[in-house]
Amino acid sequence: MVYAGIDLGGTNIAVGIVNESGKILSQCSTPTRPERPYQEVAQDMIVCIEKALRQAGCTVESLHSIGIGIPGIADAKTGRIIFCTNLGWRDIPLREELQKSINKPVFIDNDATVAGYAESVSGVSRGCDTSVFLTLGTGVGAGIIFNGRPWNGAHGVGGEIGHMTLAVNGVPCTCGNNGCVERYCSATAIIRMARQSCMAYPDSAILKKAGSIDDIDAKAVIDAAKEGDKIALRIFHRYCDFLAMAINNITAMLDPEMIVLGGGVSRAGTFLTDTVKEYTPRYLMYKTMPSPKIEIAQLGNEAGIIGAGLLGLLVKKQ
Amino acid sequence: MVYAGIDLGGTNIAVGIVNESGKILSQCSTPTRPERPYQEVAQDMIVCIEKALRQAGCTVESLHSIGIGIPGIADAKTGRIIFCTNLGWRDIPLREELQKSINKPVFIDNDATVAGYAESVSGVSRGCDTSVFLTLGTGVGAGIIFNGRPWNGAHGVGGEIGHMTLAVNGVPCTCGNNGCVERYCSATAIIRMARQSCMAYPDSAILKKAGSIDDIDAKAVIDAAKEGDKIALRIFHRYCDFLAMAINNITAMLDPEMIVLGGGVSRAGTFLTDTVKEYTPRYLMYKTMPSPKIEIAQLGNEAGIIGAGLLGLLVKKQ
Repeated sequence: MVYAGIDLGGTNIAVGIVNESGKILSQCSTPTRPERPYQEVAQDMIVCIEKALRQAGCTVESLHSIGIGIPGIADAKTGRIIFCTNLGWRDIPLREELQKSINKPVFIDNDATVAGYAESVSGVSRGCDTSVFLTLGTGVGAGIIFNGRPWNGAHGVGGEIGHMTLAVNGVPCTCGNNGCVERYCSATAIIRMARQSCMAYPDSAILKKAGSIDDIDAKAVIDAAKEGDKIALRIFHRYCDFLAMAINNITAMLDPEMIVLGGGVSRAGTFLTDTVKEYTPRYLMYKTMPSPKIEIAQLGNEAGIIGAGLLGLLVKKQ
Repeated sequence: MVYAGIDLGGTNIAVGIVNESGKILSQCSTPTRPERPYQEVAQDMIVCIEKALRQAGCTVESLHSIGIGIPGIADAKTGRIIFCTNLGWRDIPLREELQKSINKPVFIDNDATVAGYAESVSGVSRGCDTSVFLTLGTGVGAGIIFNGRPWNGAHGVGGEIGHMTLAVNGVPCTCGNNGCVERYCSATAIIRMARQSCMAYPDSAILKKAGSIDDIDAKAVIDAAKEGDKIALRIFHRYCDFLAMAINNITAMLDPEMIVLGGGVSRAGTFLTDTVKEYTPRYLMYKTMPSPKIEIAQLGNEAGIIGAGLLGLLVKKQ
């Protein structure tokens, strides 16, 4: 049997045919154009699945199920998308719509959750029963894998580690609260700190790389830090210190076997993990006890497709 | 079969014989006197178990196992206590010592964890697969029950919700960090805020109840708040706001079915839960979705004995 995995983003619908080991056999993608009626988006998903199946030399009969990772939350029972802010979707019966064309089981879950699940099946956290995956991008997404299964909470509102309060009365967040983890641990946080610093220190290598204050991105800061620029290093260390606090909060509550870092900032690789590991020990409650490993994600952008596809595997396991 | 449950505190060893439903059949207690060699403390545990068994009309043969809740952490595999700060214990082979006298399985777990487990078997959270228990006392202890079982983490360092960072650069904590949940959500936090306020507002009813600034306790503040004292109400609301943030952090990560409040502050009852529930909605990420119930613990001081005893039930379930 093979599994269709769909990574549904605001820009693209990326579809892959995945085998039981989490290997992508074929891929197909098309623009999402979320302004269209959802029925058209669903139809494009079907077209991509059929195309990818043909590319992989598989029939619809060999397809076990369709899994979809969405930037939002879904109701696992009904297969309806509850919220999907980027797409402007609210209460969309996506499973029902897809099953009109391909009558197979349809599973829908959060995109960070399925990416974390993919890492736990065929990525860096494979073999770990319990792991937490963080995507350090525009925001901070998270996927909790508990006893080998994605965990979204009893009401489906868990796994929102990016919106835990880290700083009472801290930086205002897009969610309406203040001081959320996302405001200190995302790529956006690096950019905010860098813009502030570059106004005071216009000689920083960050500005030379970025061109202008408005064009600063996390990569410019990390590249400048790697080259030893003092201002960039200060920002990067401040960022890693915040990330270490957030990681310690995960350890203090859940203590998973591994915490996996993905998303744009994780491209810094061992420069990121080595610096974070300078800061985590100071926040650990039991300093002499073992604590979660901190590793960079291995599957990159493909994690979304793989994890979505493998959602079908979970049902077989039950 | 019956189960011996031991609540090991810095002051007393409280032993109970518990049946499978979590009912205490008999109880016996003796002072801990932790300055003694641990072998003597263990011997007193045995004496109490034998006495309680006789009181309950049970034989040693009918005893399934011995469970112990400790104010510290233990290694579940070896049955050794790793740390137990209040008792000054470090790396103590408690299971081995007890089994010299009574050759039955011995289970050791954190006291807040076993109390939360007791609530999930025969207390307010019975029927909940996943719940989080908080003891709001001198510190903030926590017990996470996941899929019906206590969860202490992959390395045994989880469930330390009291030492998650809530306020970057916040109030210094006994653990060496700053801004821990415990510094804002414990009875100690209420006392700290009340002492500060009473210096500025000596006419507050808090001082009339407590007698002096040094004698202020959480009860004096809560009683004064219940009677409408403005200063006490302000402190209590500030406290409930912090607690709501900590509760939201639990929801945002784990989203359990229920969050159970125990410990001294929870004696405020619905005055506490009603006020906390005024604040939780503002921190929820998905305001229109259901979220964890917030309830007061039902088993009081007996939760420690019951939960410790029922640790034996977990092994039978496997």
